Amino acid sequence: MPNISRKGQLMPQSPIRKLVPYAEKAKKEGVNVYHLNIGQPDIKTPEVALNAVKNNSLVTLAYSRSDGSDTYRTKLAGYYKKHDIHVRADDILVTTGGSEALFFTFGSIMDPGDEVIIPEPFYANYNGFSTAQGVKVVPVASNIESNFALPPIADFEALITPKTKAILICNPGNPTGYLYSKSEIKQLAILVKKHDLFLISDEVYREFTYDGHVHYSIMHEKNLELNAIIIDSVSKRYSMCGARIGCIVTKNKTVLETALKFAQARLSPPTYALLASEAALETPDSYFNEVISEYVERRNVLVEELEKIDGVKVANPKGAFYCIVELPINDSDVFAQWLLEKFRFKNETIMVAPAAGFYSTEGLGKNQVRIAYVLNKKDLRTSVAILKAALSQYKD
Amino acid sequence: MPNISRKGQLMPQSPIRKLVPYAEKAKKEGVNVYHLNIGQPDIKTPEVALNAVKNNSLVTLAYSRSDGSDTYRTKLAGYYKKHDIHVRADDILVTTGGSEALFFTFGSIMDPGDEVIIPEPFYANYNGFSTAQGVKVVPVASNIESNFALPPIADFEALITPKTKAILICNPGNPTGYLYSKSEIKQLAILVKKHDLFLISDEVYREFTYDGHVHYSIMHEKNLELNAIIIDSVSKRYSMCGARIGCIVTKNKTVLETALKFAQARLSPPTYALLASEAALETPDSYFNEVISEYVERRNVLVEELEKIDGVKVANPKGAFYCIVELPINDSDVFAQWLLEKFRFKNETIMVAPAAGFYSTEGLGKNQVRIAYVLNKKDLRTSVAILKAALSQYKD
Repeated sequence: MPNISRKGQLMPQSPIRKLVPYAEKAKKEGVNVYHLNIGQPDIKTPEVALNAVKNNSLVTLAYSRSDGSDTYRTKLAGYYKKHDIHVRADDILVTTGGSEALFFTFGSIMDPGDEVIIPEPFYANYNGFSTAQGVKVVPVASNIESNFALPPIADFEALITPKTKAILICNPGNPTGYLYSKSEIKQLAILVKKHDLFLISDEVYREFTYDGHVHYSIMHEKNLELNAIIIDSVSKRYSMCGARIGCIVTKNKTVLETALKFAQARLSPPTYALLASEAALETPDSYFNEVISEYVERRNVLVEELEKIDGVKVANPKGAFYCIVELPINDSDVFAQWLLEKFRFKNETIMVAPAAGFYSTEGLGKNQVRIAYVLNKKDLRTSVAILKAALSQYKD
Repeated sequence: MPNISRKGQLMPQSPIRKLVPYAEKAKKEGVNVYHLNIGQPDIKTPEVALNAVKNNSLVTLAYSRSDGSDTYRTKLAGYYKKHDIHVRADDILVTTGGSEALFFTFGSIMDPGDEVIIPEPFYANYNGFSTAQGVKVVPVASNIESNFALPPIADFEALITPKTKAILICNPGNPTGYLYSKSEIKQLAILVKKHDLFLISDEVYREFTYDGHVHYSIMHEKNLELNAIIIDSVSKRYSMCGARIGCIVTKNKTVLETALKFAQARLSPPTYALLASEAALETPDSYFNEVISEYVERRNVLVEELEKIDGVKVANPKGAFYCIVELPINDSDVFAQWLLEKFRFKNETIMVAPAAGFYSTEGLGKNQVRIAYVLNKKDLRTSVAILKAALSQYKD
């Protein structure tokens, strides 16, 4: 038979993929599984967005524009203005999810063999996009002791080679929940200017900041117009993960025109989802206030309960809805499988994401898991109780 | 400023992109422009699909499965069975449009530098997907004299190198309207088996066959399980171009598992569009009968009227809704621009797609245009009258 590609062989699996059959088996046996492993919130989508689709009057479901309509992009510029990000409609390219925004950005600025520096742990699919493009991820280690703060700039600088094209951050971070400070962003801005690199910031969790912390975007920085590229998405903001609408925002016209060529090849973003996304911009502030309060309470419950368990260390998240938790175990892949396959607590168990998949450096994160606090407080309390009971029994 | 990628520089523009500003200018001046240049049909989407979205009861617009739900894929297998294509749900990977299906297929079977042989003229975005993947398109010429029939197998064989990984056809063809015969498909099947290549068939126009001709799929061929990959989409079938739902169909498990890794990285196809696509499978046969009759009539009007013009040659399409037309001119890029910029007939003009963008060989197709018969018969008649008047005035 003809061979598949080398790149296809190298493409990483999702970190939880091999756990899925065990979760399915447990459910078939009647076991209740709490999903702490995924970033699919249980939060309701704003009604204004849902209604825009329910009440649509399309007769022919036609292509939309490859780069998104003028109307939607103009309204998006208005949304950014509220966040003190001053862009125009033509600084925005609408994409099929944040995933595609990142994919087009990588394709527009990097060739096979080029390098992108990413603080680890990082969103696992960055590995997938990089492999698909033949781009090399160069990780720079952050650690749980510092709550996953930005690594020292000297650590970045030591990794820069002639092949380095960009630094990529996720702010606030998946999987760390870390929110970069203004000072950290400023240091990165100086670094990328000095070395003529792109600074890509995945800001899909922009609204999800807690304890009075305010998000500081790379586009708040002056003189970074040619370097700064924002990756964005409606998925988390409006609990519309299934819409698949995102965007690239940059003042660098060459980058945006190049990304447009990739966008034209795939024709257009999904039309129904655009209706929902445009309407979602009318979401009242009260929606976000409620959602943010809910996440803060969930985080507080989660962190408080986790800290009660002996040998457990947790990085207190200031944003997004994930945290990295260090457990008194040796291999979280084995532990996560054991939870699904063997462990039962009143006929219930939990599914967590082993953290090794969020690191690029072999061996890191093996005693860590990522927990997404996308369940209600009661379920989170129960989940941590299950984790506690499991750790008391587990031997690896 | 940091450089964009070499690949980004090489990415082709859509063949009509540079004409768009001239069309917009003409419209601003109050000129009516008939769009013969695009594959966006004016046909209505089946109500069953529209209603599924209007009546949806989603409260949280969540991710769908990366590979499409079991239910949808099982129903899709039922659809293929009606077309005598015998596949199971797990031979299908649901994608975000046929575009993504082709992109994942290229990524799964080819590395940068690998080659794919494609009869030209071909769908222009094949160039885009190839450039994005660093894959080399090797064109094999078909011609208007033979109605764009399959080139002799010896012509394909002469182009096969150790880098050749696949042959790609579009059947029925965009932009040619040519429908490959059973005998032509059989010849290709023998060839790919002999040289251990993949045979990729873009069959998104499967239903659009005329004059009693029946579509013969690569998956009707026995013993081609490991070589055959179908690219499919709901876009044209149900006039749902804006849905962005397609699929890869193959019995080759390694290919499908590899494509799934690319699919997981982009998370999921758009959820609303999946509702529409699943419901669209209930579209009554009467819908297709009407649509096909309409296209046959349109084609008849178009070809009949075009053949009346001196010096015009047209390849009579047996499927899809495009045809390549040879004109008594030297450069259809210049002619198409002149039509929009200078020529007016009762304050109307037409927009056509210059054919050079559908060829990979430099210099071919310069006296040809692609016409999409996606307008009603009256508008088509008027459009051809405009073309005739234009040709009588035009000097290049």
